[in-house]
Amino acid sequence: MQTSQITRYEHPLTEKVRIYLRLDYLLRQMQHSSNQNDPWQYKIFFNALFDLLEILDQVQVKTDLAKDIDKQRQQLKSWLNIDGVDEYALQQMIDAMEQAHKALISSPRLGQSLREDRFLSSIKQRFSIPGGSCCFDLPSLHHWLHLPNEEKQSAMRAWLGELDELQDALNLWLKLIRETAQYKTHHARNGFFQYDAEDACLLRLEICAEDGVYPMISGHRNRFAIRFSPFTEGEPVASDLEFKLAIC
Amino acid sequence: MQTSQITRYEHPLTEKVRIYLRLDYLLRQMQHSSNQNDPWQYKIFFNALFDLLEILDQVQVKTDLAKDIDKQRQQLKSWLNIDGVDEYALQQMIDAMEQAHKALISSPRLGQSLREDRFLSSIKQRFSIPGGSCCFDLPSLHHWLHLPNEEKQSAMRAWLGELDELQDALNLWLKLIRETAQYKTHHARNGFFQYDAEDACLLRLEICAEDGVYPMISGHRNRFAIRFSPFTEGEPVASDLEFKLAIC
Repeated sequence: MQTSQITRYEHPLTEKVRIYLRLDYLLRQMQHSSNQNDPWQYKIFFNALFDLLEILDQVQVKTDLAKDIDKQRQQLKSWLNIDGVDEYALQQMIDAMEQAHKALISSPRLGQSLREDRFLSSIKQRFSIPGGSCCFDLPSLHHWLHLPNEEKQSAMRAWLGELDELQDALNLWLKLIRETAQYKTHHARNGFFQYDAEDACLLRLEICAEDGVYPMISGHRNRFAIRFSPFTEGEPVASDLEFKLAIC
Repeated sequence: MQTSQITRYEHPLTEKVRIYLRLDYLLRQMQHSSNQNDPWQYKIFFNALFDLLEILDQVQVKTDLAKDIDKQRQQLKSWLNIDGVDEYALQQMIDAMEQAHKALISSPRLGQSLREDRFLSSIKQRFSIPGGSCCFDLPSLHHWLHLPNEEKQSAMRAWLGELDELQDALNLWLKLIRETAQYKTHHARNGFFQYDAEDACLLRLEICAEDGVYPMISGHRNRFAIRFSPFTEGEPVASDLEFKLAIC
């Protein structure tokens, strides 16, 4: 398997991790677009922001994430007395998690200040209408778009800053989960692969882009299946397809 | 009124022009994003494309636009024999409109090939779910995103090319409509302006950005009102506010 043309995929095996990955994906979009000068970049930022608020309205992320962070911290603590462990590094990680946990549980309702922001709430509704953010739909947005770039970017950073507690806890939790497993080489026979896992919550795949396939994954914590489909309809899938998999 | 810091607004006075402006806005987003290398740019492109298809599903744009182009062409023709008219330029415009009209009415259902595109229709549905275009939601999109930039841009240009007839006719019609009126200076008293128009369909405004206001417009072909609101809540609006207006 060549290492030059790798496409990485992640797939959640629980509903909670699915939500975490979605939030992470939206936060990355906001982070990235808040630093750009492209005139249409605001579409990415606001769409991601409003999607994120909708998810936070539907799911109790704060409590779940705080519990998960705490569980990770307890586990790290139990490793402190094991011989050969880098205690300093471990303690630093434990401290970081304690801080993230504290900040998260003491924060007000996630995204509440964004929901109450006069400007954001005045443009939110129209964003879900097809083509609904024209200048005649949202003249106040149109005015905002003509402010100097620094002013807009600083506003975006401030809105993003309101999600710092979420972002910090999420980054930490995902980082540790991703590090719980190494990539191992596997083979799919006739484009199909099945596996019995043990309480896994996240799959990470590396596929050689040149194989021209993408993975369709189904399953749960203890058992999952991957079907590799050709991107170009009708193209054959290698009978013996090598890929790398980390079961986190 | 300074000319350096002008914000331009457009407002449709008929439902048809509202649709035309929305389509124009979406096509411009697609056009722009199809030429960018930014890794999240595809969000702008696909969101605009799917919004556009939704509008085309709801409204019979093709027939309306063909009729409107033809009406414009007839009007231009009637000017051919008027003294002092640049006949050559006029005839060129008439020819362009004839061509756009012909291409539009002889085209298949607008966007039909895009609706039938296997890849596009496989990702369309998920795009309306909040955060629903993660790599685990749409692994085929994730594969596509890892294709070389030139390949992606050429695919986007090809999809956009399927809307050429719409784009050409729309550009032509909007260009001529916008040219039917000159900007004139007006004054709003206490942030309010009212006007009796004669069969207008589009308003164009130029407002000095430093005035810190944006226009809220209501009305129809024969009468409209503009209320200028302060962008920053509580800020006063000048009792005599100068702005420019073109009634097309």
